[in-house]
Amino acid sequence: MPDASGNVARDHLRSFIERIERLEEEKATLMADIREVYAEAKGTGFDPKIMRQVVRIRKMEPSDRQEQEYVLDTYLSALGMAVEPAEAGEGAE
Amino acid sequence: MPDASGNVARDHLRSFIERIERLEEEKATLMADIREVYAEAKGTGFDPKIMRQVVRIRKMEPSDRQEQEYVLDTYLSALGMAVEPAEAGEGAE
Repeated sequence: MPDASGNVARDHLRSFIERIERLEEEKATLMADIREVYAEAKGTGFDPKIMRQVVRIRKMEPSDRQEQEYVLDTYLSALGMAVEPAEAGEGAE
Repeated sequence: MPDASGNVARDHLRSFIERIERLEEEKATLMADIREVYAEAKGTGFDPKIMRQVVRIRKMEPSDRQEQEYVLDTYLSALGMAVEPAEAGEGAE
């Protein structure tokens, strides 16, 4: 391979890699921001684990969510682990 | 729990969740951008799998990288899979 085109390829490769690294850095920053919001919410008394579930559920189509819950209930019932439904608003008091 | 503070908690929760969702959206956009750069590089003839390895290696401390390579070589040798070192620049021609 002649030198000139080898250099062009090398410059191309370097530029691709550096673009990816910049984007990866921005992604890392965003992920730190997200962790920070969860930490802040936890400091206010919210449970981050449940919040992650909420975020996941809000992303789902209602029909997908319903189906998943139905299948989960079926599996839990099959294993004798069905949970009595609690009324919203009632809790450990 | 009195209504007023219940509403405050609800507003707080909603605001946390919405902040997370905005950040998650930005993250998804960045991840799509990253995939696009790899696709573009592939179109220019570079191997995205190897590029991901390069990105990973560039993130490592040289000493960590050396240690990992040493351990990998040891494992491969133990399994009779040691690779003859090739000189840089030589390849399938």
